[in-house]
Amino acid sequence: MTAAPQPADLALEHLHPALGEDLLTSITFFNEVAGRHPGALSLAAGSPNESRYDVADVHTAIDRFCDYLREELGYDERRVRRTLLQYGRTKGVVHDLIARHLRADEGITVDPEALVVTVGFQEALFLTLRALRRDHRDALLAVTPAFVGVTGAARLLEMPVLPVEAGPRGVDPDCLARTARAAREAGLRPRACYLVPDFANPTGIRVPLGIREELLRTAAAEDILLLEDNPYGLFPLDGARLPTLKALDTGRRVVYLGTVSKTVYPGTRVGYVVADQTVAGPGGPRLLAEYLARAKSMVTVNTSPIAQAVVAGRLLTHGGSLAAANRHEAESYRLALSQLLNGLARRFPAASGVTWTPPDGGFFVTVAVPFDVTDELLARSAEEFGVLWSPLHHFYSSPGPLRLIRLSCSALTAAETDEALDRFAEFVRAAGRDPAPARLPHAGQTATRPLPEGRPSAGAEGGTGEKVTGSS
Amino acid sequence: MTAAPQPADLALEHLHPALGEDLLTSITFFNEVAGRHPGALSLAAGSPNESRYDVADVHTAIDRFCDYLREELGYDERRVRRTLLQYGRTKGVVHDLIARHLRADEGITVDPEALVVTVGFQEALFLTLRALRRDHRDALLAVTPAFVGVTGAARLLEMPVLPVEAGPRGVDPDCLARTARAAREAGLRPRACYLVPDFANPTGIRVPLGIREELLRTAAAEDILLLEDNPYGLFPLDGARLPTLKALDTGRRVVYLGTVSKTVYPGTRVGYVVADQTVAGPGGPRLLAEYLARAKSMVTVNTSPIAQAVVAGRLLTHGGSLAAANRHEAESYRLALSQLLNGLARRFPAASGVTWTPPDGGFFVTVAVPFDVTDELLARSAEEFGVLWSPLHHFYSSPGPLRLIRLSCSALTAAETDEALDRFAEFVRAAGRDPAPARLPHAGQTATRPLPEGRPSAGAEGGTGEKVTGSS
Repeated sequence: MTAAPQPADLALEHLHPALGEDLLTSITFFNEVAGRHPGALSLAAGSPNESRYDVADVHTAIDRFCDYLREELGYDERRVRRTLLQYGRTKGVVHDLIARHLRADEGITVDPEALVVTVGFQEALFLTLRALRRDHRDALLAVTPAFVGVTGAARLLEMPVLPVEAGPRGVDPDCLARTARAAREAGLRPRACYLVPDFANPTGIRVPLGIREELLRTAAAEDILLLEDNPYGLFPLDGARLPTLKALDTGRRVVYLGTVSKTVYPGTRVGYVVADQTVAGPGGPRLLAEYLARAKSMVTVNTSPIAQAVVAGRLLTHGGSLAAANRHEAESYRLALSQLLNGLARRFPAASGVTWTPPDGGFFVTVAVPFDVTDELLARSAEEFGVLWSPLHHFYSSPGPLRLIRLSCSALTAAETDEALDRFAEFVRAAGRDPAPARLPHAGQTATRPLPEGRPSAGAEGGTGEKVTGSS
Repeated sequence: MTAAPQPADLALEHLHPALGEDLLTSITFFNEVAGRHPGALSLAAGSPNESRYDVADVHTAIDRFCDYLREELGYDERRVRRTLLQYGRTKGVVHDLIARHLRADEGITVDPEALVVTVGFQEALFLTLRALRRDHRDALLAVTPAFVGVTGAARLLEMPVLPVEAGPRGVDPDCLARTARAAREAGLRPRACYLVPDFANPTGIRVPLGIREELLRTAAAEDILLLEDNPYGLFPLDGARLPTLKALDTGRRVVYLGTVSKTVYPGTRVGYVVADQTVAGPGGPRLLAEYLARAKSMVTVNTSPIAQAVVAGRLLTHGGSLAAANRHEAESYRLALSQLLNGLARRFPAASGVTWTPPDGGFFVTVAVPFDVTDELLARSAEEFGVLWSPLHHFYSSPGPLRLIRLSCSALTAAETDEALDRFAEFVRAAGRDPAPARLPHAGQTATRPLPEGRPSAGAEGGTGEKVTGSS
């Protein structure tokens, strides 16, 4: 008997609406493009430079943390094993070490009990939004352009996202106040504003000190929290650092969202949230962190203590400081970003119509081009020119073609960056002449045209949404 | 100048309502009780037996997975490093090995692309519920009593949970059908029914084969999915196993939720979901797993590949089979459960008013007692009798005192179990005479009375919600 063709079991309209939106499918699209063109060089990848990665260091780090448990905390073998391998504390087991790192590297003094160790930045954000979104009136403000993980998490929780334009100084406190007031007039409750004050993704801008202070005053006046995301703070272009918002925060206005993806390994999937706000309740005041932990117990239970051990070991090996652990990396990112900027300047003179604001640090620069930048154009760039980059419309809540592109310096070697910029310049010239997208092969079909150059690239494997859109 | 006492920054009514509910606070309460009484023996802990745990095995497992990547998949060193340490595939990197285990151990044949590796069972469930809950009309059915993580995740997503009484055979398909129809008549859309067919938490019941087959027919007739959770399937009391629902599922009615917390380590936080249902959408049909991965990319991005490597290494060391890896554990749980049941029989003769239905396997037995079981009584048991157990009302959506207690056999040694049962019998006799709860010390205040016995116990440290309520 021949089986009749089976109908689909479900339809997309039976699932949560966010799952069918462009916002989330854009990642799938990027992965498909990257997967079809394994030889393409990636100026899209926001993943950290892996040239010094070594699996042996994972073993060393785990052992170092176990030694710490034995020697500094006095744990017996049974308790060491239990700490690494059993169910554990919902708020994490390396909170003391992370608090020590924040004091040493960020000037943030915080009760370790106010920390929740999370599955990367993304879960830290997700839990915070879940706690703050009690009904359809609670809204998130986000300095825009913003990482797709922010708008995506908010969409999954049905929380409206109101853009606050980044502008030339990274954020405009007046614009923040106006957006909050307009939200209130529209019947919404603006709860918090998301931003990356240090070397934002995708603009690379560092918010000046005076604006940081003004921002804290505005947040207090408007009674909103600031959600500070700081993945790139250790990587300034000029070597100088400004205090984080959390370090300046005397009124508990800032929820600090951390990740070690750029400073240890993305593969640890370890992040954290500092939530030292007090919450009045029937049993007396508790830390906001306690409520985030309650939410976490229903989302992921706890963060793998094995992965936490890798982070702890790295910290312990460098006297508790991630700045110390990343001296080499900070220097190499500084060189890579300089090379990217110098390379752009050489290839795009003033008359080219291609412009950019030099970033202050981090991994990214946003480049303005004289044509609409679509996903189709990215596919053409990969296929015809062998180079990947990120269309900036993915960083806005209401996507549509913009004339902006994000380039990243983090994942390529110096030689690869030069080659990638050559290809990019060729692509820009071609797209400027003929912005109509080329006919694309169907998804899943392999392009048969040879690439301009076949050598494998750092961006070849595992092109993921994290890479196209950066911080997570 | 003296600082004025600062008002709280937020109030509980400003946060998501689930965060203040008894459901989530009961875990906090249990942790406080366990923390105040570190000498109490725990018949509450659902954590796995850790007598054979060894941190050295973590190193061995990671190395074994790296060797597999090199030797069997032909990865070069760079790709091995990248697989473990970089951002990775959202659906996971050990999907092939998990699919192989499901074929070997569970008779489940599944396309590895239909698997999403998650942060434990809990995230697998959370993502599934997020996908299925599109608005307030989508409801979850849950065979009840059910693990608090199920009702908690549903509450966090504002998805109503409709109980389907477990009854003597673990689930009654007619009751499932009636509940689904009543939900429809009330304007709801029943989407799925959660259950543990093998040695459920907390009843230990195994659903008979005939009922499994009937359940699949009922699910098809009512057009709902079955969410099959299987943490204890490898641990039958009689050594015999029945096919899982997923193994019997010819119509893609079953979403299978897996975890290795009981079979590798809870500290890996690795679980997975098998979602091979097709979803019709504008770009053609895709697997439900693809949509769960989209949701995952906004919740945790991906599951730590370092933690996944530990699971993969354990599988590879045992020819891809978790049954083979757990031969010793299966035997020791069988002995522990037998000891628990024999110990109950010796201490509570027929006339005692204490009864239980012998479980078919797993870690738990539900005991009926002749008095109302409250959280206060648990605190009294810990303080006056030095023994912890789980009040069964935490396994129901609308909590209130029941005359039921869950006991667990998994975490104690044989000697500890005997001592714990002696204490438990003393407690039951005392509570039967005087069911009024003792006056409790305030939360945070340390009890000063000496415990009946001071020796440290397996349940002493890290009492967590996972332990009081089991599977996650």
